[in-house]
Amino acid sequence: MNSASTDVLISEVGPRDGLQSIKSIMPTAQKNAWIDALYRAGIREIEVASFVPAKLLPQMADAAQVVEHAKTLPGLTVMALVPNLKGAQAAIAAGVHKITLPVSASAAHSLANVRKTREEMIEEVQKIAAYRNEHAPHVKLEAGIATAFGCTLQGLVSEDDVIWLAEQVIAAGADESGLSDTTGYANPAQIKRLFKRLKAAIGSKAGAAHLHNTRGLGLANCLAAYEEGVTSFDSSMGGLGGCPYAPGASGNVVTEDLVFMFEAMGIKTGVNLDLLFEARQPLQAGVPNEAIYGMVPEAGTPKGFVPASQGAYL
Amino acid sequence: MNSASTDVLISEVGPRDGLQSIKSIMPTAQKNAWIDALYRAGIREIEVASFVPAKLLPQMADAAQVVEHAKTLPGLTVMALVPNLKGAQAAIAAGVHKITLPVSASAAHSLANVRKTREEMIEEVQKIAAYRNEHAPHVKLEAGIATAFGCTLQGLVSEDDVIWLAEQVIAAGADESGLSDTTGYANPAQIKRLFKRLKAAIGSKAGAAHLHNTRGLGLANCLAAYEEGVTSFDSSMGGLGGCPYAPGASGNVVTEDLVFMFEAMGIKTGVNLDLLFEARQPLQAGVPNEAIYGMVPEAGTPKGFVPASQGAYL
Repeated sequence: MNSASTDVLISEVGPRDGLQSIKSIMPTAQKNAWIDALYRAGIREIEVASFVPAKLLPQMADAAQVVEHAKTLPGLTVMALVPNLKGAQAAIAAGVHKITLPVSASAAHSLANVRKTREEMIEEVQKIAAYRNEHAPHVKLEAGIATAFGCTLQGLVSEDDVIWLAEQVIAAGADESGLSDTTGYANPAQIKRLFKRLKAAIGSKAGAAHLHNTRGLGLANCLAAYEEGVTSFDSSMGGLGGCPYAPGASGNVVTEDLVFMFEAMGIKTGVNLDLLFEARQPLQAGVPNEAIYGMVPEAGTPKGFVPASQGAYL
Repeated sequence: MNSASTDVLISEVGPRDGLQSIKSIMPTAQKNAWIDALYRAGIREIEVASFVPAKLLPQMADAAQVVEHAKTLPGLTVMALVPNLKGAQAAIAAGVHKITLPVSASAAHSLANVRKTREEMIEEVQKIAAYRNEHAPHVKLEAGIATAFGCTLQGLVSEDDVIWLAEQVIAAGADESGLSDTTGYANPAQIKRLFKRLKAAIGSKAGAAHLHNTRGLGLANCLAAYEEGVTSFDSSMGGLGGCPYAPGASGNVVTEDLVFMFEAMGIKTGVNLDLLFEARQPLQAGVPNEAIYGMVPEAGTPKGFVPASQGAYL
């Protein structure tokens, strides 16, 4: 279907965020089959891999091959996560359409996660933007603000720091900056407050909401973000890459449940729920030892349910 | 704490809705211990039992004894569910403060559930109100609209039917009427639309939101109801009485997660989360073979978390 006719963009992060968080390594052919199935369901942006040293994340060793395959799907925005300039160079060489670089608002988390201060990460954005401008000006650069709603190391994260950092990464050359609830700490009031400030600070460069369901508030937080004008949402099929806590306590918001919520509300995602449920099969086949979550796939859609996108599919 | 200083009322329905949905029968002493623990946490309205024939629901055979104990807790509103006049008479004889009678907006569900048409249920409300007025005028009568957001038997339920029925039960003598998502079909847009119409139709007699989490939208729906002005919410500790679907797919909204959402947002519930988590122990001890859910009890509250009600506890 045509993305111009959708109200929100569902950006599937499972092949990267999900697969890099679990022990199992999905074979390349099965990653490709899963990406194909997501595409068939109407997903038009997928974070397919991260470009990091294979010794650190063997799950992502085939990043370039996965990008190469994903690029054969017409109209799909092929994204990859990169931690630094070196990763960005590899991602650009592989031919991605969009790069995403997480920049942590928590000083403690930034040091622990990438061994760089926040100021050093802003410099990294500058270097990546300069490289991109010279070698691949068509590639989009997103710098999402991680731990924007709190941090497991330092606890509270200053809202002023979050907005300051978003302004800095845009000034450094990023095309957009969204907010990530890396730790599952966010609540709907905080979501509205911060996305409102983000939009006031960087206008149309305000990017996606990347929200987690660790404390069960994932969909409520997505609803709050939508009500504040956010139209791009990261989520992960089956909640893959869930946190170590009990059954159902997934990390990322579950794509299937998020699509259901929007479609039930009359908000077009362009995603066909039945085909989305079918895309769980290649995922499960590729990582047979991992638990795949999702409330709507298990309960089924309501009797008489009519999705907003019905009639708009290809 | 003083209920005048809270922003929303959390009405715990676990001892009724939860316990009547599971196979295990909790002994009376343990029900009382659980209710005491809920009260200690700051819960000030509890649906403690249903007055139905013991041969139909042996879990509720001790309803009168549980009511007798709950009434010893100062400031607690002791509620019971009744299906008909006979149940109302028994509940009033036992000394409840408030009666709740579910009236289904789905014609199919009404017949299947209580073998009465909707019109016959309106007559039942009239009879109960007349009896109450004569014998116990201080007892509050709530008639909640069940299957207000859709029905597993007939699918769609007309919104006009829902509002018509709410008007009818108020005209028949109920003090308030709320809306129940019995089937877990609701979405936030529908929640807002219907509670807005409910308030327009019956004004201050619009009652609680009784929402389920079957499709993961429980908290998003509570948020939507709150934004529409609803201040009374039914929920169940540990999501007890969950639907037969997979882990985490609870029926009722989980009290612990709901209280966390509101307290994190700065909305006072009057409930102390730490003491609420402690109240899971007598619940689990009383039904050791049942699964107790809850995302926040499992993940813990965020580092540095300050609840809105802090400083307001007794």
